[in-house]
Amino acid sequence: MSLPRIAVDAMGGDEGVRVMVEGAALARRRHDRFKFLLVGDEMLIKAALENHPNLRAASEILHAPETISGEEKPSQALRRAKHTSMGMAVNAVKAGHAGAAVSGGNTGALMAISKLALRTMPGIDRPALAALLPTLGDNDVIMLDLGANTECDARNLVQFAIMGAAYSRIVTDLDSPRVRLLNIGTEENKGTESLRDAANQLKLAAQGLELTFDGFTEADKICRGDVDVVVSDGFSGNIALKAVEGTARFVGDLLKRAFTSSLRSKLGFLVSRPATELLRGHLDPNNHNGAVFLGLNGIVVKSHGSASALGVANAVHVTARLLEENLIERISGDLAKLGGHGLGNGRAAKGAAAKDAAE
Amino acid sequence: MSLPRIAVDAMGGDEGVRVMVEGAALARRRHDRFKFLLVGDEMLIKAALENHPNLRAASEILHAPETISGEEKPSQALRRAKHTSMGMAVNAVKAGHAGAAVSGGNTGALMAISKLALRTMPGIDRPALAALLPTLGDNDVIMLDLGANTECDARNLVQFAIMGAAYSRIVTDLDSPRVRLLNIGTEENKGTESLRDAANQLKLAAQGLELTFDGFTEADKICRGDVDVVVSDGFSGNIALKAVEGTARFVGDLLKRAFTSSLRSKLGFLVSRPATELLRGHLDPNNHNGAVFLGLNGIVVKSHGSASALGVANAVHVTARLLEENLIERISGDLAKLGGHGLGNGRAAKGAAAKDAAE
Repeated sequence: MSLPRIAVDAMGGDEGVRVMVEGAALARRRHDRFKFLLVGDEMLIKAALENHPNLRAASEILHAPETISGEEKPSQALRRAKHTSMGMAVNAVKAGHAGAAVSGGNTGALMAISKLALRTMPGIDRPALAALLPTLGDNDVIMLDLGANTECDARNLVQFAIMGAAYSRIVTDLDSPRVRLLNIGTEENKGTESLRDAANQLKLAAQGLELTFDGFTEADKICRGDVDVVVSDGFSGNIALKAVEGTARFVGDLLKRAFTSSLRSKLGFLVSRPATELLRGHLDPNNHNGAVFLGLNGIVVKSHGSASALGVANAVHVTARLLEENLIERISGDLAKLGGHGLGNGRAAKGAAAKDAAE
Repeated sequence: MSLPRIAVDAMGGDEGVRVMVEGAALARRRHDRFKFLLVGDEMLIKAALENHPNLRAASEILHAPETISGEEKPSQALRRAKHTSMGMAVNAVKAGHAGAAVSGGNTGALMAISKLALRTMPGIDRPALAALLPTLGDNDVIMLDLGANTECDARNLVQFAIMGAAYSRIVTDLDSPRVRLLNIGTEENKGTESLRDAANQLKLAAQGLELTFDGFTEADKICRGDVDVVVSDGFSGNIALKAVEGTARFVGDLLKRAFTSSLRSKLGFLVSRPATELLRGHLDPNNHNGAVFLGLNGIVVKSHGSASALGVANAVHVTARLLEENLIERISGDLAKLGGHGLGNGRAAKGAAAKDAAE
């Protein structure tokens, strides 16, 4: 069976076409059965491909006359989608010319364009943005939603849990990932009504699904390695993700300051360099690059704007894995099981949705 | 003028009476004009005081027959307040026998007991829990609310901003602390309606207040040192605080793992120890201990349950500073200025409150 192509928005990302193409070329080495559709300025892409004959042999170029800027409002980006590298990469997925799209451009624009072009899957009310974070354990943890939906009801959270678990099963090879809802305490009475409703629904439904629902988690326990999927509304998830990223950077800055504070500490730094390099590698966002929009009729992956070629390669790697492992079919299958339990489209979910709508 | 006494719940905290008394004794050295009311088991307190004659000379003991456990529900703690060290310490503030109370016990119980006994100040709808966090700059940053209120409207957020700025002016000596609202982006259209309303109100009101309103901040920029007060609802604030704490611990654990991974790195660790000790000191929660319930008719400070004697001393130090500098009068003064601007009790705030209530 031939695999679907991966469309790469070659113009997105702060570093421009060279890094996007180099990243795709690196990923291509790991996934040599894939073909690519490179979308953007044809001249620039051709020039960038000169150093990467293997990628060139596996690629087609789709010329896009315009690009979307980092500051552009989603509404404006939507209007220009048809002529831009980002919009054309996503539309290639819609038209079936590619199985997935990767972009390092403006997140809000990518979300708006993807939602409009690909629409949400049957059984999913709203898509969510999911990312991988490092942990003290063997596997990365998946967090979602990270900002696609400022406010969410219980039904959204249950759907996010199912989508996050499907994603986790693919990237971790776990049979039944441990799922928790992000809350401000682990007791059953903590948090908002939506969270408590979602917990009750997941408790009932989890037996029939390929996930283990472990209740609530607090934000200081995300990276301990004892949870595989952390589910939240997009506001809280975005706050938690950025607090984690900011603090990792903050501690790194303090460490740098400490190591350069005296001759002795500079010497100590040189001696322990291999160890601190290990740490740096573990925390480097490039090694966890590639956030996925889950819940659409097609796979769209957001690469960090400032990602290196290695970072872009990781985002493309994630995309390839999700295509190979049929993420969307897996989510559909799980949603069907949820329906069979009388939830999702059943009484409990309807009650919660009605309650949320009335609030 | 004689200063009011500080009531110390000597039984709260995981480490028990010895650490609470030792912490008070350490703080007493810095604040020798203060007197103390030590509340708890009289025999145990007397025994702990034997090593601290200076504190003993400045203290009175208030015997409390019971204590509140860490797991106790706030509702249950409220019913037993009268006979417990925590409840009696807070009631001493209510009765005017002390100016402030410090406890290392159960946060939910302390909040419930304090709210019921001390009530909110005129002009404040809800109290908030505020804490100090380290930054890359010269001053700590104040974050509030950290969990007293799961959901907040614009009016609550404006009041938190005013209380947080008053607190910041005392601990940092800044004339006009830089205040930001925690959000998922810095553009004006980001986040919830409550956040946008609060931003508009603060923009209008800030000229008349002793604070500089700088708009929104994202959670990765809390500790950079360019904001002095970060305001949020209690849910988001709790998520952000715990994500910061958890990540600092996570990076510390990774660092420990890296430094013990080889003989060479162990040697490097020994050489650079003074530098890493500096870092550890900067991040040690004991050095930032003492979260304050703002907005009550009396000062209540929460010391971390696992705080060391030095940590307790820092919590008592914060308490002493807030008493010396008349925190509550300062907040009242600011609220009066806000009223003069037609906000707070005026049209804009009422509109927002009505809208929030209708949601």
